Amino acid sequence: MRNNSNDFNQIYATERRKINTILYNAVKNRQPSSLYKPAAYILHSDGKRLRPFLVLLSAKAVGGEFKSAYNAAAAVELLHNFTLVHDDIMDNADKRRGRLTLHKKYDHNTAILVGDSLLSVAYEYLLKDCNGNSKSILNSFTKGLEEICEGQSLDTEFEKRKKVSLEEYVEMIKKKTASMVKMCCEIGTFLGNGKPALVKALSDYGLNIGIAFQIQDDLLDITAKEEKFGKRIGGDLIEGKKTYLFIKAIEKSTGKEKQMLNKVIENKGIRINQVNKYKELYENLGVINDAKRAINSYTNKALKSIDAIKNKGNREILIWLADSLIKRTK
Amino acid sequence: MRNNSNDFNQIYATERRKINTILYNAVKNRQPSSLYKPAAYILHSDGKRLRPFLVLLSAKAVGGEFKSAYNAAAAVELLHNFTLVHDDIMDNADKRRGRLTLHKKYDHNTAILVGDSLLSVAYEYLLKDCNGNSKSILNSFTKGLEEICEGQSLDTEFEKRKKVSLEEYVEMIKKKTASMVKMCCEIGTFLGNGKPALVKALSDYGLNIGIAFQIQDDLLDITAKEEKFGKRIGGDLIEGKKTYLFIKAIEKSTGKEKQMLNKVIENKGIRINQVNKYKELYENLGVINDAKRAINSYTNKALKSIDAIKNKGNREILIWLADSLIKRTK
Repeated sequence: MRNNSNDFNQIYATERRKINTILYNAVKNRQPSSLYKPAAYILHSDGKRLRPFLVLLSAKAVGGEFKSAYNAAAAVELLHNFTLVHDDIMDNADKRRGRLTLHKKYDHNTAILVGDSLLSVAYEYLLKDCNGNSKSILNSFTKGLEEICEGQSLDTEFEKRKKVSLEEYVEMIKKKTASMVKMCCEIGTFLGNGKPALVKALSDYGLNIGIAFQIQDDLLDITAKEEKFGKRIGGDLIEGKKTYLFIKAIEKSTGKEKQMLNKVIENKGIRINQVNKYKELYENLGVINDAKRAINSYTNKALKSIDAIKNKGNREILIWLADSLIKRTK
Repeated sequence: MRNNSNDFNQIYATERRKINTILYNAVKNRQPSSLYKPAAYILHSDGKRLRPFLVLLSAKAVGGEFKSAYNAAAAVELLHNFTLVHDDIMDNADKRRGRLTLHKKYDHNTAILVGDSLLSVAYEYLLKDCNGNSKSILNSFTKGLEEICEGQSLDTEFEKRKKVSLEEYVEMIKKKTASMVKMCCEIGTFLGNGKPALVKALSDYGLNIGIAFQIQDDLLDITAKEEKFGKRIGGDLIEGKKTYLFIKAIEKSTGKEKQMLNKVIENKGIRINQVNKYKELYENLGVINDAKRAINSYTNKALKSIDAIKNKGNREILIWLADSLIKRTK
């Protein structure tokens, strides 16, 4: 697929530029600047823009056109940035994409308000593209937003709990991460006037690559190369987060190994110099391979569901995208 | 209007109960409880429910029925509660309606997330009532949300600035407070299928009673009886807020009186035992009467705009409501 891959990369780069322009314009020249300057700061960070790209691809996959969905594409990225700003406050994160987080660059109150404001502008942009089937689009977007809040709440709850099952974890990431990816695909199919069966196919594709994406995130935290990753390796372990790998490790371990893992929970994290020891433990328990298998399994589910897309080019670019997500290094 | 007043009070009490039931049900039995229990906590506080009542009255004023607008009415109250939760974090407020604020009862992160979640449920409820003219309704709601964020940002900006003109202040409260009241009326008229002239009439009514409401708030801060008010008298002066009365006082004062007022800005507030001294100054400068005149003037503008409503009962309950707002003691 090398030739196609070049083409797809080029389409992605072109559309990413267009989406960036819409995003920058969305907050440019608005008043007061005390609100929209910080909003521009977060939108000018170097985001992948995968969610808006998925809106466009989904519109096309069901026979529609990119041009029917640019504002909605911007809307999902605005929504995504709203979650980043509020999540960074909640996680007390200092850096995002190599730059200061919004509440560090400005202050907490500004960050709360800018998050709220980005969400309002997201609805404004979504409404620009809403014509015929606006209720389905708005219901999907709103349901996505609700689930993101629920997922974030569950994530916080899990951090405080001693025991979380793998099933509960997958339910959580479905809401926190995958629901938005699913929603992007749904909105695209609505804007492309897709038939119900295709809406369902794309929705399943989005849900499953969303789950795969989050498990890949958990995996990269321990297997990535720091210089490419842009963050400290083992950050999740240092913070004592219950990731896919950690929960799987707890399930598979016994004796001393289980004790070692329970210490992460008791001490609410590990020290930086312990990361390698835990990486070894993960390798010994085989959970790195377990995570890889899970990522492949969810990705395959996603790919299977889009068999229904007749047009080869439209289908292959979605396959390429799913593939790129698995192979990503950051 | 004594007899009518009794009737209107009864209608208000009945509808307030119905709105409360919808609001309580909106978050009941939802999971996770870590999110929806705190959401229920804020919704169970003793709110006036004036905004949802305005949605209902506006629907009826243009010839529609209450029953077409109950979900939208709940939506504006959910939106209002979202702003209360986030504003209380930003203001670091301890109490709201005599109870602990949400971030004090729970924690900051929960309050940020519950605010976001209330907003998502607000859109969900709004969409339930959206049928024919859903785009107008959603545009109005979203524009209201945007302006609330802008108004809140301006308010924060003004707190840091040395000088704010009365004109700037009115622009700020138009966005922070009045835009939501205006939006409530607009949405009601859309749901009642009102003609454009009536939509405009009710929209102007909402905007102007919204402005009057906020100036009344500023006035009550200094003239209310503490036992009825439920808050400390002079709180705005203690916090150094630039209210209608304060800005007017700065404009009218000279010499020693101006110095006294400038000290509030320099010291970012006054001490509790200085409140009476400043109240006297406000009286001497006549700004308490100025505020009363402004409230009357905006209320009269509001009442004039609803002359267009033909049905006497529908018009008089809106007059009664505007009147109650002026006469309120808390």
